[in-house]
Amino acid sequence: MIRSALKKVVVIGGGTGNFVVLNGLKKYPLDLTAIVSMADDGGSTGILRDELGVLPPGDVRQCLVALSNSSRLMRSLMNYRFENGGLGGHSFGNLLLSALEKVTGSFEKAVEEAGKILYIKGKVIPVTTHQTRLKMVLNNSKILEGEKEIYLSQEIDQGYRSIYLEPFPKVNPRVIEEIGSADLMVVGPGGLHTSLIPNLLVEGVGEALCKSGARKVFVVNLMNRRGQTTHFKASDYLNELVRFIGEDPFDHILINSQKPPKALIEVYAAEGNLVENDLADDRVVYADMLGGLQGEPKRDFMKRSLIRHDSKKLAQELMKIVDHL
Amino acid sequence: MIRSALKKVVVIGGGTGNFVVLNGLKKYPLDLTAIVSMADDGGSTGILRDELGVLPPGDVRQCLVALSNSSRLMRSLMNYRFENGGLGGHSFGNLLLSALEKVTGSFEKAVEEAGKILYIKGKVIPVTTHQTRLKMVLNNSKILEGEKEIYLSQEIDQGYRSIYLEPFPKVNPRVIEEIGSADLMVVGPGGLHTSLIPNLLVEGVGEALCKSGARKVFVVNLMNRRGQTTHFKASDYLNELVRFIGEDPFDHILINSQKPPKALIEVYAAEGNLVENDLADDRVVYADMLGGLQGEPKRDFMKRSLIRHDSKKLAQELMKIVDHL
Repeated sequence: MIRSALKKVVVIGGGTGNFVVLNGLKKYPLDLTAIVSMADDGGSTGILRDELGVLPPGDVRQCLVALSNSSRLMRSLMNYRFENGGLGGHSFGNLLLSALEKVTGSFEKAVEEAGKILYIKGKVIPVTTHQTRLKMVLNNSKILEGEKEIYLSQEIDQGYRSIYLEPFPKVNPRVIEEIGSADLMVVGPGGLHTSLIPNLLVEGVGEALCKSGARKVFVVNLMNRRGQTTHFKASDYLNELVRFIGEDPFDHILINSQKPPKALIEVYAAEGNLVENDLADDRVVYADMLGGLQGEPKRDFMKRSLIRHDSKKLAQELMKIVDHL
Repeated sequence: MIRSALKKVVVIGGGTGNFVVLNGLKKYPLDLTAIVSMADDGGSTGILRDELGVLPPGDVRQCLVALSNSSRLMRSLMNYRFENGGLGGHSFGNLLLSALEKVTGSFEKAVEEAGKILYIKGKVIPVTTHQTRLKMVLNNSKILEGEKEIYLSQEIDQGYRSIYLEPFPKVNPRVIEEIGSADLMVVGPGGLHTSLIPNLLVEGVGEALCKSGARKVFVVNLMNRRGQTTHFKASDYLNELVRFIGEDPFDHILINSQKPPKALIEVYAAEGNLVENDLADDRVVYADMLGGLQGEPKRDFMKRSLIRHDSKKLAQELMKIVDHL
């Protein structure tokens, strides 16, 4: 079997965290794959799931745009949201994916065709192609139904008993292949309960991650979300992931060392605080990966996401690891 | 000035009639331009006009698909209609054009970009880039507001006093250029009051058509529409057009000679009857241009449109004229 001379990097996440990693890495000669959670059910994506019975397009769209080599106009078009009437709130890229799913009869085929239209570098692969919903049972016995409810909950930091996908979905077999043949795996950054864990809840993903001969990197989030991961430190993020993976598979843990301006931290204090590093571990790469305030689409970002990773700096740190493989 | 060695063919219409002409001609080495009426306000197009304030995408979409050299999948995608919820009834291609208009700030730019995405051969040019509505005052003083109302009226065959666009739109200057530099102009087939005349109502179009050095062809419809052009003969169609052009500019009048199967005529008798040729004019080309029952998207066709021109046969007749230019 002939193997590509390019190093194969597989990124697990979904949402804006993935966007930053992929957008940074696409400038390098790599064989890139994004594995995307299929648990999203908020906003435009949630309406499309409910009304059309399609698989959730939102996170896939963001990955496609991140990997796209098409014109700025095409990328703007994908993220364009209709403002009025029955279309109000839908992003055009979500409609493209849903229409393609209807025309081709397959979400995976839809993602592939959208990838061609957008001249993407690499591949975007849904972690499962089965309809599933994310659910969570809190310590107070409340049941949160759907990613959106979980995303909006302010009680998760009081503890939860379980988080699971229902129905329990079969993994997309291509995901296991991609993880198995990766040279580098990147997990995070991203919503812990809404992006990262939903991938690990799919049968076989954690096991494949452990078994893979790839070097494994965990990119720790910059910010906690109040009511969700309030006052989490780096070790808390790691422990949560390890719980769902089954063991600690990571070779490197990337943590940002650069403090954002105090004024900015204060502005966003109501939404969450900075993640502190409490790991004294020689796996930790402690480096400046903080983003500036400019560039990139703002539409899908929360206010607090103005404090975010810099695509370029994060990619540089990841490439230092790739270059030593 | 260097002129293209290819003959320049400019087609005026909008809607399914244009589709047949363009789809047939695109197989030949020609410099093709479609000029499209901007009066459509029914269905998906009407909703988009009302809710988003965009220009009408429906007829443009059909021309783009007709001229597209992209995959069958892309063409199906453009004509795909969402079935449920807030998106119900919208064709994907209409949403593409409307989103592109919003992102680029210009309908013409949107058409151009959509043309790139669809790898179209030739150009599609809106007759005007101003918002306008088609109106008609009937002999009984009833006012029909909008193309949809006119299209659905069953009283037009009782006579009308006037048909006009409001506000009276400025012509797209590119339309005048295209007509001026055409080698062949093709008018029709298409809805007389809802596709052909709305182009001629735009300031300067009729005059440009008369002044152009192009050879001019009128392709007469196959079927009348009951309540609209009930029992019209070829001369009635010609006279109606001449009324709006100002003089009779046509060098050739293409009329189908082949009768559809009797059973089919009977099935569709309620919707309209066949157009008979009553012209004894040496401009008349009387030839079999009747389409079969298969192929082409059915979604946008009326029942009676199963009796329609054959793209290939119609193009062959037009090419006989082009070859003698």
